[in-house]
Amino acid sequence: MDFNEILKQKTAEVQKVIDCYLPEETGHQKTVLESMNYSVKAGGKRLRPMLMQETYRLFGGSDRDIEPFMAAMEMMHSASLVHDDLPAMDNDEYRRGRHTTWVEYGEDMAILAGDGLMVYCFETALKAGGMTKHPDRVLRAASILAEKSGIYGMIGGQTVDVELTDKPIPRDKLDFIYALKTGALLEASMLIGAVMAGASPQEEEKIISIADDVGLAFQIQDDILDVIGDQSVLGKPVLSDEKNHKTTYVTLEGLDRAKEEVKKLSERAIRTLQELPYENPFLEQLILMLVTREK
Amino acid sequence: MDFNEILKQKTAEVQKVIDCYLPEETGHQKTVLESMNYSVKAGGKRLRPMLMQETYRLFGGSDRDIEPFMAAMEMMHSASLVHDDLPAMDNDEYRRGRHTTWVEYGEDMAILAGDGLMVYCFETALKAGGMTKHPDRVLRAASILAEKSGIYGMIGGQTVDVELTDKPIPRDKLDFIYALKTGALLEASMLIGAVMAGASPQEEEKIISIADDVGLAFQIQDDILDVIGDQSVLGKPVLSDEKNHKTTYVTLEGLDRAKEEVKKLSERAIRTLQELPYENPFLEQLILMLVTREK
Repeated sequence: MDFNEILKQKTAEVQKVIDCYLPEETGHQKTVLESMNYSVKAGGKRLRPMLMQETYRLFGGSDRDIEPFMAAMEMMHSASLVHDDLPAMDNDEYRRGRHTTWVEYGEDMAILAGDGLMVYCFETALKAGGMTKHPDRVLRAASILAEKSGIYGMIGGQTVDVELTDKPIPRDKLDFIYALKTGALLEASMLIGAVMAGASPQEEEKIISIADDVGLAFQIQDDILDVIGDQSVLGKPVLSDEKNHKTTYVTLEGLDRAKEEVKKLSERAIRTLQELPYENPFLEQLILMLVTREK
Repeated sequence: MDFNEILKQKTAEVQKVIDCYLPEETGHQKTVLESMNYSVKAGGKRLRPMLMQETYRLFGGSDRDIEPFMAAMEMMHSASLVHDDLPAMDNDEYRRGRHTTWVEYGEDMAILAGDGLMVYCFETALKAGGMTKHPDRVLRAASILAEKSGIYGMIGGQTVDVELTDKPIPRDKLDFIYALKTGALLEASMLIGAVMAGASPQEEEKIISIADDVGLAFQIQDDILDVIGDQSVLGKPVLSDEKNHKTTYVTLEGLDRAKEEVKKLSERAIRTLQELPYENPFLEQLILMLVTREK
């Protein structure tokens, strides 16, 4: 089977896990439950839970106690998108070809749906406590989820991004935004996989280094695709960064250096992965796909 | 020392615990950290963490592993107020005599501050994992925090309240809103105190029953004060529910039945508390104060 076939199959598997942890749309609070599920079900590549599961498998993890964390991670990611799209934030009306949550359910319900997802994310993750032989690992994994989603992670990056909207961004702040806004959840995903499988502190260090490289390369590739991408493949307009006067890695460093950087980062990530005394060929291919993708 | 003196002292103690867990206002994301602390520091009675600590003490708890949960509870409560005040929600410009967070920091930053607090709430609570001899209790307490704050707790109640704004509310939905929007965090506070101190399942049941009675009585007393309260004591306008055509326990059942209900609920709560083979005279007085208060 070729990589794309396997990827399709694995995506379906991950999807099943997520579906299994979504709340039932019933009771007095039906509307908020519907609007939460509306955003999570909107689709996407499910990269974060997939990276989590594959890292878990890399370290020999074979239990189901990783699954609540996979669903939780996707909930946190969705929550951030629901709030990012709000009129007071990016004011986006469409995402993945559908109305954004606030357009579909109203601004008040979208605020509550994002809140609901953020909290349900922890309610879900902590279900692993009842499934595991390692409560200490669940505690650490939940702490990582909180730290990397919060003000020292994703939300922190989002804040700086919001503050610098329509302003030129110096390189140090751009690095901060990339590391936190995109990088933090990718790092958390891989690190939670490692922690739940019982990786050693040294192995955790390597996973963090891999995830940081992949996260940054992923984001720079995004910037590159905005310049050289094929609109029909991407499914969204190209050159939007330039039109919006947005500072990106490409506008700061130029296209050639951006491409070099992606190559350097992804090669280093793969090298570090190969230094580990375990193998997961699919994870290696997945990382390569992420940084060489055309959409 | 009379009750008010002790209360003042205990409030100061609780305040110290909260302050100790607030994030430092430094780094690239300084603005969101400031706006988070702005809302938590706005004051209030700190009832939830106080109820938590006193319930913990009732069951013989004497460690500091309850403290992260006390601070976390106040963060979650503040987060909900920050989002409730937003223009798309209640559109309130003042709270406790100061500008609300969105007026002070902008709507986008207020959304992020609420998000930041919600996630930091769990980051903080989970710090108890590194301080406790009972990781299993920390896992359960964190799960209770998530459940009672989320769509099956506070956020669920808030959703129904938002949906029924400017509409008449039937009794069953009013009960649902009261139980969840106000009651859930009070219940979580007392239950987390019990769980962290190692209370038995039967003892937990009694605490839930007490907290439910106190939560409902507290809310009905709020409705009563809006009708018969003294504006200068309350520090906010009276008769605002009537002016806003808001359905409350008093508009549905009348003032006399409301007063009877508060009396019945608080007496039952105190009776249940006295059935427990432990004593905490301050907790008893605190509960009585909550339901007989004039502001």
